[in-house]
Amino acid sequence: MRVNVFMQIGFVSAESGQGRAKNVRNILLKNSVNIMLCAICWWAVGYAFAYGKTAGGLLGISHFFSDGETFDSKPWFFTWTFCLSAVTIASGCLAERTHLFVYPVYTAVVSIVVHPVVAHWVWGKDSWLNSRVGSPCRFLDFAGGAVVHIVGGLTGLIGAILCGPRMGRFEDGVQKDIPGHDVSSVSLGSLMLWFGWFGFNCGSTYIYMSDGGPAASSAVSRVALNMTLCASAAGMTSLVLASLLSGGSAGTFDLGVCCNGLMAGLSASTANVGFITPWASCITGTLAGLLYVASSRLLVRLGIDDPLDSSAIHCGSGLLGVVISGFLARPSYVRSMVDKNCGGLVYGMNGGTQLGMQLLGKYCRISGRNGFGGKRGGRVMTLWGGLRRWVKSDPWGSYVVRRLLVTIAWTALWSILAFSTLKRFQLLRV
Amino acid sequence: MRVNVFMQIGFVSAESGQGRAKNVRNILLKNSVNIMLCAICWWAVGYAFAYGKTAGGLLGISHFFSDGETFDSKPWFFTWTFCLSAVTIASGCLAERTHLFVYPVYTAVVSIVVHPVVAHWVWGKDSWLNSRVGSPCRFLDFAGGAVVHIVGGLTGLIGAILCGPRMGRFEDGVQKDIPGHDVSSVSLGSLMLWFGWFGFNCGSTYIYMSDGGPAASSAVSRVALNMTLCASAAGMTSLVLASLLSGGSAGTFDLGVCCNGLMAGLSASTANVGFITPWASCITGTLAGLLYVASSRLLVRLGIDDPLDSSAIHCGSGLLGVVISGFLARPSYVRSMVDKNCGGLVYGMNGGTQLGMQLLGKYCRISGRNGFGGKRGGRVMTLWGGLRRWVKSDPWGSYVVRRLLVTIAWTALWSILAFSTLKRFQLLRV
Amino acid sequence: MRVNVFMQIGFVSAESGQGRAKNVRNILLKNSVNIMLCAICWWAVGYAFAYGKTAGGLLGISHFFSDGETFDSKPWFFTWTFCLSAVTIASGCLAERTHLFVYPVYTAVVSIVVHPVVAHWVWGKDSWLNSRVGSPCRFLDFAGGAVVHIVGGLTGLIGAILCGPRMGRFEDGVQKDIPGHDVSSVSLGSLMLWFGWFGFNCGSTYIYMSDGGPAASSAVSRVALNMTLCASAAGMTSLVLASLLSGGSAGTFDLGVCCNGLMAGLSASTANVGFITPWASCITGTLAGLLYVASSRLLVRLGIDDPLDSSAIHCGSGLLGVVISGFLARPSYVRSMVDKNCGGLVYGMNGGTQLGMQLLGKYCRISGRNGFGGKRGGRVMTLWGGLRRWVKSDPWGSYVVRRLLVTIAWTALWSILAFSTLKRFQLLRV
Repeated sequence: MRVNVFMQIGFVSAESGQGRAKNVRNILLKNSVNIMLCAICWWAVGYAFAYGKTAGGLLGISHFFSDGETFDSKPWFFTWTFCLSAVTIASGCLAERTHLFVYPVYTAVVSIVVHPVVAHWVWGKDSWLNSRVGSPCRFLDFAGGAVVHIVGGLTGLIGAILCGPRMGRFEDGVQKDIPGHDVSSVSLGSLMLWFGWFGFNCGSTYIYMSDGGPAASSAVSRVALNMTLCASAAGMTSLVLASLLSGGSAGTFDLGVCCNGLMAGLSASTANVGFITPWASCITGTLAGLLYVASSRLLVRLGIDDPLDSSAIHCGSGLLGVVISGFLARPSYVRSMVDKNCGGLVYGMNGGTQLGMQLLGKYCRISGRNGFGGKRGGRVMTLWGGLRRWVKSDPWGSYVVRRLLVTIAWTALWSILAFSTLKRFQLLRV
Repeated sequence: MRVNVFMQIGFVSAESGQGRAKNVRNILLKNSVNIMLCAICWWAVGYAFAYGKTAGGLLGISHFFSDGETFDSKPWFFTWTFCLSAVTIASGCLAERTHLFVYPVYTAVVSIVVHPVVAHWVWGKDSWLNSRVGSPCRFLDFAGGAVVHIVGGLTGLIGAILCGPRMGRFEDGVQKDIPGHDVSSVSLGSLMLWFGWFGFNCGSTYIYMSDGGPAASSAVSRVALNMTLCASAAGMTSLVLASLLSGGSAGTFDLGVCCNGLMAGLSASTANVGFITPWASCITGTLAGLLYVASSRLLVRLGIDDPLDSSAIHCGSGLLGVVISGFLARPSYVRSMVDKNCGGLVYGMNGGTQLGMQLLGKYCRISGRNGFGGKRGGRVMTLWGGLRRWVKSDPWGSYVVRRLLVTIAWTALWSILAFSTLKRFQLLRV
Repeated sequence: MRVNVFMQIGFVSAESGQGRAKNVRNILLKNSVNIMLCAICWWAVGYAFAYGKTAGGLLGISHFFSDGETFDSKPWFFTWTFCLSAVTIASGCLAERTHLFVYPVYTAVVSIVVHPVVAHWVWGKDSWLNSRVGSPCRFLDFAGGAVVHIVGGLTGLIGAILCGPRMGRFEDGVQKDIPGHDVSSVSLGSLMLWFGWFGFNCGSTYIYMSDGGPAASSAVSRVALNMTLCASAAGMTSLVLASLLSGGSAGTFDLGVCCNGLMAGLSASTANVGFITPWASCITGTLAGLLYVASSRLLVRLGIDDPLDSSAIHCGSGLLGVVISGFLARPSYVRSMVDKNCGGLVYGMNGGTQLGMQLLGKYCRISGRNGFGGKRGGRVMTLWGGLRRWVKSDPWGSYVVRRLLVTIAWTALWSILAFSTLKRFQLLRV
């Protein structure tokens, strides 16, 4: 539980290393204030909004200031580290050019409004999004691929766009790299993040399997294995791909790309790491590595300056991670964790209720009675059948897509609002 | 348990960063030797003096060299990290000007004489301080606010005074700041300390609730929450206060003050974190932040050069933390941890035996029979009544004050003795 | 379990600090690739070779790609960190002069061929080495003194020899020190290694005592205590010894030697830390400190350039650690861990089957029936009797020596093969 805090040390180390020497003090101060302010906001309001007793499915309204007889510190602390991650991810995108005033404002907005509300809507059992749907499956977001990484990455992306690039980054249409001042700090920070992430993902297992018996212990180990493979595959893929794109000689292997690829792999694993097999984690990691390199280059092409590539790492990978569950979630793992009979699209070939179908629309919903593991045998569905249904289906109305869209829309709304207001009062840039 | 060792990494990182580049090697070597020597001293003698079978209430005299059938390695390791913290705290005050010979000497003195004896007297059930008192309450020092932080901070303060300031620190009555060489190291070190401190405080919960059941698990989480709030409040308070005192513009936010304030908050939380509510932790943190800034400025005014502000951080906050229990300890938490019916002064208004009263003198002692939770109902006592008794009471004879005074006197005695002897043989300064 | 990963952060930090500034990026990239590639190799093949179902006692052949119903992720992850340590140890010896291509090749060789095969042979119950011997004792290698440290150190040593020294290290027969660029990084890295090592050794306790009851918990604490003492004694010994050898003045205390001595102590403790007493750990640490300084100087004398002294630290200490069990293993600890009646040579004086005898040859083998703790009383054997048998015995045929020789021979064979091949194709040096 407490090891999640270690992620922050990794974040701070990686971020300060990627900044220029003149900005180190500023970056460190900003990150320290982020942590402290986020703790106070989450204690005062955020936790209550997110995990308090729901008010009409819209918002939690109990446990403000850790109040109330039923308040339990354990989930408070664990969920705080989630909120803190979302806040810190975004901070990377704003490095080296924003007004000191920006940080406390966006920390407060993310930890009071954006993350808690999304967490309440997407994860809360009684929220308006979840209470009306009698679904045979659940929205599978293992440890916050959407609720943490998409929220953090998207907030940061919007902030980076509204802030504009650092001076000298895109001059006369030519992009110039602004190298960080301490590569050791970046590399060690990435490894520390990895270490802390074990706490984040492995610890989340106990939310699903709270009895803590041998099954949970075995699931925790599977999570650790999957994360390791996903991160390794992503780091290797992005290292090799970026090198090939730059000519392929030995000198083109870029440590920064490797570290960022590793983190993209970890982000991508977050949403699905408990639901998929090691093989699937390797595939996820490879895709995350490709996606990271592609989105990093896309940002540069679009003239968006994200000093740490945080939005490329977290936003895209978070989305990838959620989507991958729809294809690769193994029914037996899903059942053991969320007690639902559903699985990924590829398991459709040997029967089972389809999470892939869930992703693809309401027409594909299949009742649990016929589902995987049912005593009367599963309903056989070919991959072809699944794809045909995809075409016919209504993605906008589907179970998962609706949750993703709500997350994205709410995050975008508040990010734009907050950063525009700051810009209006000329408090956005130094 | 082992995570406490991580505090040392934080200490070393913070201390080496605050030193000048030319002294880094020296600081690192000193800290390494501190750790190794303290381990050997604690194994050979320290643990036996502190936690061995008492000899007349004065000193433990069993388990030298981890000897004896009843020796258990578990408390050895845990208590070693306490002793190590006391040693390391003091080392910060002596940085950058002392003879290399000083470190092993004071490490041996603190880990053989000062800390073990105080631990035996204050924490030992059969010590002369505790055996004679039939008190309805106990001296509440959750994880060593007095026994670690006051001991460490005071030893360091006395060392800093006897050593005199670094060259160039106070020239012609003008104080000049001597900035550290690596601000990243300081900031990361502080966060690492925070991380390690979770082990220190959360782990201490199991000393009070050794069954390790759900109640203990819930208490551990409350400790983590309280620490987080206390540290955050202290860091924010000292950051803002120091900035206001320096003019209040954006440029006056000082990362170093923020890191030190954070640590002051952690020190202040150590003595009481298991006994108080999150609200009380916020208040404690705010006070610790104020106290740190004030005592840091006082040291400068007095011409005492403490390169890391260790004494300002640990000594004052340690004292604050112990005292705060007397006012804010919640009776139900105290009962669940030490099985005594007592609480802080503010809970006097709705009944209960008063730890605040304990702090304030023997006249206020109230028998457990009438105490909080007694079946015949608690004795109602107004805050006013408590304060009136304070005036009438004899603080010198009181339960808590006696322990604090013994701690301070013993620590001061040996510190003065050790450093004076070193000075006498011209081994104190380079 | 996951804390073992932290060792990698320590390794990376220590290694990058000991390199020159111009090589930091290279060192960091290499280490990152090591970790990622080792994870993939271990998942695909290594784990199957090492811990899969044996094929004729030669090689494991199940659980490739984490396949199979009986595959358990928990041992996978734990054993992966063992393999990773072996890989990383060797990487230190090759720093600053090898071709970028060397790292992935030797990572693959060590994590697919060298370490898994040795682990299967030495630790596997059905391996050809273990199945034929009806021994009253077991080869005592607590957490991989042979299987990790000798393998890693020896691979590195052979690599360092075949690579040749860095330019300027031994010019005209004069050795010149090439100082690292960041001493903080080295010192903090060593402490981080120490911290991670607690996970490594303490976690290994649960392999022997898998019920996890109070006996295991107490053994874990003893392991932590022993490690602490062994590391402290080794660090102090090497610090003082190296200073004495260099003249003995205050300026000759060398932080690097202290850090390396500490690590040598940790390496030496790895093989025996669960089987010996704190006193024995102190002795082991002292010997490890002496041995490190001696072997470091021997390497220089021989003109072998090991930039991090990794082979001096790990190879010699690994061997020392295994041998020390034969002399100092306490029978009651051995029995509680491996359920065999045997102990070290020094316990021969008060009776017991002798592990020392095991080390010293087959003539000394004593059946368990007469052994320590047998109901009909232990067989009394004087130290003198043990030594007399040593002279008469055939060390080459002995139980332990055979395992050590197999480990060394197999490691040497493949290391020479791999590095020679790379050299042949001029891919070894930059």
